[in-house]
Amino acid sequence: MPHIRIMDTTLRDGMHAMAHQFTPEQMAQVGAALDEAGVDVIEVTHGDGLAGSSFQYGFAAATDEEYLKAVAATLKRAKLAALILPGIGTCEDMRTAVKAGVKVFRIATHVTEADVSEEHMGLAKEMGTEVVGFLMMSHTVGKEKIAEQAKLMESYGADVVYVVDSAGAMIPSEVKEKVSYLCSVLKVPVGFHAHNNLGLAVGNTLAAVDAGATVVDGTLRGLGAGAGNTCTEVLVAALKKAGYKVDMDLYKIMDAATTLEPMMRRPQVIDNSSIILGYAGVYSSFLLHTYRAAEKFRLDPRDILLELGRRKIVGGQEDYILDVAYEMAQKKNIMVG
Amino acid sequence: MPHIRIMDTTLRDGMHAMAHQFTPEQMAQVGAALDEAGVDVIEVTHGDGLAGSSFQYGFAAATDEEYLKAVAATLKRAKLAALILPGIGTCEDMRTAVKAGVKVFRIATHVTEADVSEEHMGLAKEMGTEVVGFLMMSHTVGKEKIAEQAKLMESYGADVVYVVDSAGAMIPSEVKEKVSYLCSVLKVPVGFHAHNNLGLAVGNTLAAVDAGATVVDGTLRGLGAGAGNTCTEVLVAALKKAGYKVDMDLYKIMDAATTLEPMMRRPQVIDNSSIILGYAGVYSSFLLHTYRAAEKFRLDPRDILLELGRRKIVGGQEDYILDVAYEMAQKKNIMVG
Repeated sequence: MPHIRIMDTTLRDGMHAMAHQFTPEQMAQVGAALDEAGVDVIEVTHGDGLAGSSFQYGFAAATDEEYLKAVAATLKRAKLAALILPGIGTCEDMRTAVKAGVKVFRIATHVTEADVSEEHMGLAKEMGTEVVGFLMMSHTVGKEKIAEQAKLMESYGADVVYVVDSAGAMIPSEVKEKVSYLCSVLKVPVGFHAHNNLGLAVGNTLAAVDAGATVVDGTLRGLGAGAGNTCTEVLVAALKKAGYKVDMDLYKIMDAATTLEPMMRRPQVIDNSSIILGYAGVYSSFLLHTYRAAEKFRLDPRDILLELGRRKIVGGQEDYILDVAYEMAQKKNIMVG
Repeated sequence: MPHIRIMDTTLRDGMHAMAHQFTPEQMAQVGAALDEAGVDVIEVTHGDGLAGSSFQYGFAAATDEEYLKAVAATLKRAKLAALILPGIGTCEDMRTAVKAGVKVFRIATHVTEADVSEEHMGLAKEMGTEVVGFLMMSHTVGKEKIAEQAKLMESYGADVVYVVDSAGAMIPSEVKEKVSYLCSVLKVPVGFHAHNNLGLAVGNTLAAVDAGATVVDGTLRGLGAGAGNTCTEVLVAALKKAGYKVDMDLYKIMDAATTLEPMMRRPQVIDNSSIILGYAGVYSSFLLHTYRAAEKFRLDPRDILLELGRRKIVGGQEDYILDVAYEMAQKKNIMVG
């Protein structure tokens, strides 16, 4: 059975569930426990990556540099990673991150916009770091489009390209189809990042490795926005059970989850909003806008989310939610009137 | 795509997470919401089935008859079911249950002991109810053994036979192998009941229906012992997303979960004990005995659970846990001495 690398993003994607308020000391504690358990890569930053700390995305309790340095100081074996979304983080932020100890950049774009990662990937390669390409919202397009965009990232120097199920909207058969096709067209390894909106984070991740992915993501206790991510310690148990080689100690990764637990603001569960977001295939950041639009136009917010999913709305189109709700309200009035 | 029946066991398997303390009024509220959402079958009793209320299994807040009557009075469309474990519940309990409104009996045995269900299945058929056979701990034996035992149940009159992953120990490939084999040898439909110890309750249930199962279980919010069950409202979303026909309203089943939520004692999450139980393939009822044995012999309880899993310990062998721990302690002393 193949060897599976795990990249843990408790200290990045998990930041969403913490309103970006981990302290550097807490990050150091969790990072040390992850390192001790044998995690290969530990991702650290604001939830929205380098320079995410802002009025728009929420201010973090410390700077990315402070977080990265705090975790870097505790690592004996794991590689430190930072996420960057071109447009939010800059090349300058990447240089600062490397000085703070980053050895892996995970560079994320919408699944149809891989071209915006070229400059950042070039810089990452130039600085000698590992480069991971992250194709977000991969549920919105077919396997050929994902492959085309992944090949772009590969041509820019990506060492791994991820299929990212940002909205937790995929089912195992879809994951298998997309990942296996990607494996057949790329020279570099394929990764998979899940969310748990439909209760399928672990199931989809197993489907991904069965289809040929060799790098997968998790967070301790599933910590993450909404329904959260694949739970790292559960995933390690499931992968070992399925016979995959994982260089991690099951007891120690469970201990790392015990270290995290008292820092959590709430248990990570799947609430009704998360289910609808996953079912509709819509980003969790649209939730608040949708509730506002629903109130304004006296609509069921669930209906709006389903309509947004059908229209494949993407990040940056938040104003469009009001237009959609207005249109729906008009149609409803005509029908009842 | 095939039509999938859902049997909800919030008011039976979920009783474990409530220390069997649902009130009949609470059960009636939840039952009405499940009925309104279009659930096909609603299972009600003590967590360990008819007559489970006892010193050994824990006393419930009311009698099974009171629970069954309270829920029966609210149902407009769903069929009322009761679980019975031969040896705990008796034929007399079944007669009382039918008078209280039961239309479906789910008769459960260890996966190698189907023969103890013959009398109860016969009585259930005689009383004109639907009969479901429940093969517990199906992860402990191979597909041929499951098929042999399932065919026994079929010969006793079972209308459906379930593969039951009592310890949440299965992975999707195993579920597919066992369920598809069972479908190929039985004339009656095959069911699947999951637990979420390895985060795979929804993933395994999708694997089961992909392999031919047409009847599956869930509980609202995953309410159940340890890591809990397949979450019904999440499962409905996942099944619809996968294209299966499900006669249930997604909004209304989410509303039913909202009805249940304030009654819950704790959010349903996967803790470290649940992970080890699933990884080891051991019943959650062994946990307390294991902690006691670990303390007595100064062992790591996780090591004991893994050893119990290797030895395939079954219910009723609780005393054996001390023997195993003693043996492990002896071996450890020899090794360190």
